Amino acid sequence: MTTSKNNVLIIGTGGVGTIVAYGIHVAGKANLSVVVRRDYQRVSKEGYKINSVDYGEIKGWKPDHVYSSVEKASESKQVFQFVIITTKNIPDVMKPEELAAPVITPGVTTVVLIQNGFDLGKPFIKKFPNNYCLSGVSHIGSHNHDGVIEHTGHDKEVIGYFDNPNFTKEQQKAKSEELIALLANEKNTIVYFNDAKWWRYRKLVYNATLNTVCALTGLDVARLEFSGVLEKVSVPAMKEIVAIAKADGCELPDGIVNEIAHCESGYFFEPSMLVDVKKGNPIELEVILGNVLNVAKELKVETPTLSLVYELLKGVQYKLKEGQGLITVPKTYVSNDTHYSNV
Amino acid sequence: MTTSKNNVLIIGTGGVGTIVAYGIHVAGKANLSVVVRRDYQRVSKEGYKINSVDYGEIKGWKPDHVYSSVEKASESKQVFQFVIITTKNIPDVMKPEELAAPVITPGVTTVVLIQNGFDLGKPFIKKFPNNYCLSGVSHIGSHNHDGVIEHTGHDKEVIGYFDNPNFTKEQQKAKSEELIALLANEKNTIVYFNDAKWWRYRKLVYNATLNTVCALTGLDVARLEFSGVLEKVSVPAMKEIVAIAKADGCELPDGIVNEIAHCESGYFFEPSMLVDVKKGNPIELEVILGNVLNVAKELKVETPTLSLVYELLKGVQYKLKEGQGLITVPKTYVSNDTHYSNV
Repeated sequence: MTTSKNNVLIIGTGGVGTIVAYGIHVAGKANLSVVVRRDYQRVSKEGYKINSVDYGEIKGWKPDHVYSSVEKASESKQVFQFVIITTKNIPDVMKPEELAAPVITPGVTTVVLIQNGFDLGKPFIKKFPNNYCLSGVSHIGSHNHDGVIEHTGHDKEVIGYFDNPNFTKEQQKAKSEELIALLANEKNTIVYFNDAKWWRYRKLVYNATLNTVCALTGLDVARLEFSGVLEKVSVPAMKEIVAIAKADGCELPDGIVNEIAHCESGYFFEPSMLVDVKKGNPIELEVILGNVLNVAKELKVETPTLSLVYELLKGVQYKLKEGQGLITVPKTYVSNDTHYSNV
Repeated sequence: MTTSKNNVLIIGTGGVGTIVAYGIHVAGKANLSVVVRRDYQRVSKEGYKINSVDYGEIKGWKPDHVYSSVEKASESKQVFQFVIITTKNIPDVMKPEELAAPVITPGVTTVVLIQNGFDLGKPFIKKFPNNYCLSGVSHIGSHNHDGVIEHTGHDKEVIGYFDNPNFTKEQQKAKSEELIALLANEKNTIVYFNDAKWWRYRKLVYNATLNTVCALTGLDVARLEFSGVLEKVSVPAMKEIVAIAKADGCELPDGIVNEIAHCESGYFFEPSMLVDVKKGNPIELEVILGNVLNVAKELKVETPTLSLVYELLKGVQYKLKEGQGLITVPKTYVSNDTHYSNV
């Protein structure tokens, strides 16, 4: 039995990524590297500061290797058995499969996407057909507040795989369990779920409908219900997600719409996309809404509510990208000469 | 021939109302009163300051009477032949027919609504069935900047009537011309248009579709086109307005959608509803969108785009009203137990 540890690289150590990293450290079965961009100077000198509901107060902890960019991690010449991506997934700003490409060894590296959204594996499997692509759905509560990780909700991760037809289901399940062995320790809860697609559809019932509509209206989930928008917009949108899932072979349980519509009861909660809009950050629009609408189109499922929310949020995204200098708005406005017919 | 002048009261002297008032003063055929709320102290002492494209620079002009409220105007015991309302029309905050009721003498006062929106006459005609209710659509460019009226776009008003079945068309046309005689002078352009409903449908092609969607996305009209939202949301919405108008007997001209979609070409223009959202003011949602959707429902015209934009903007309106202290949000959030079925 070999004692050599797996080389694991985590890209993005915000609220989720840092706790995943620390969990791996506690499990003690990996040689751990992280890519930290914005906070590189501080983390590489002083380590992380974490107030964790699972691990207590942690000061000055450093992974084995800290890199300021994916390119720097690549220059280390390590071969990574696992690359875990926990950044926001905004392919219209930066495609994660291109971001991670320098540290992915074809046929060797298993890619793990612990990110929001739907159908995230597709571009990776297309670009790296001989690599496993695993799915992590995080149910953690954890945020980076000015460099301090405030971990307030227990770390639960649901692991599965984005189906790659070049591997058998058994191989992909075995690879998922290999990952779980690296992540799991006595404090966190890391579980395997056989149908990542089903699980992500389930999460979309919330994310594609409450998260998006809160972002568009500026309302938290309580005000969304008080104002009537939950009932008039989000609930019809939820039913569309349920219909797409069903057409795609994923039967969601009876009562899911009612359950999700009221899951935040008691909290004036601001979902992540609303938080991003308020901070002026681009939103995860394509993975939370665009990808599932592509599936709906292929399967010919009608999505009047989701499609319109998507088109409106594309306008919001345009403004957010402009604010970040990611696009340049023309200085003069000459309306194009498209002719719209009257009917 | 009697020399006694008509008593005219204008409620609301912002950008539009002040120029309407000054135009009446120049025409010289009325005993002119105004209700000024926010700026009462200044206007009653110092008069108006106006920089006008039509009338030049005006300082210290005062109408014959200045009142701080409708109630104060009512206490003057004047009988008003005409009451002209130029305030924003936000019936979910303040019903204009209730606001104006103290100065409307049944069977005598002609009500003139120089306001945005559709079907504005209905509540007045219901409450005052023996009074004329006239329509003014303003095509002016004029704004109140910190108490100075900056009048930059020529004053053009299109006058007609909201059809009251208790009067003949000839009577209502004659009353409209009576109003025009009071308003018109050598500098402004006051025209009669026979079909106020048609004219307001025409204006809705812009207001219900560009104004609303800019307010919802935060985009000006140029960015609305650049981002694709104009084509994907506003244009389908325009086609719905055209369809409602047609079902309601108002045939809008071929090419109207294309014309309105590109009418702002060259300008990074922020429509009024977006300006209101940015200022935190409640929006004219009901008169610009709610009223026409009621008509669509009666006439069984499908309005998937407009209806969803309306429901989303109700959420925005909720937040705006909360910001102005007009509603109180419950301190605790216990989600109601509505049961939404899955399909």
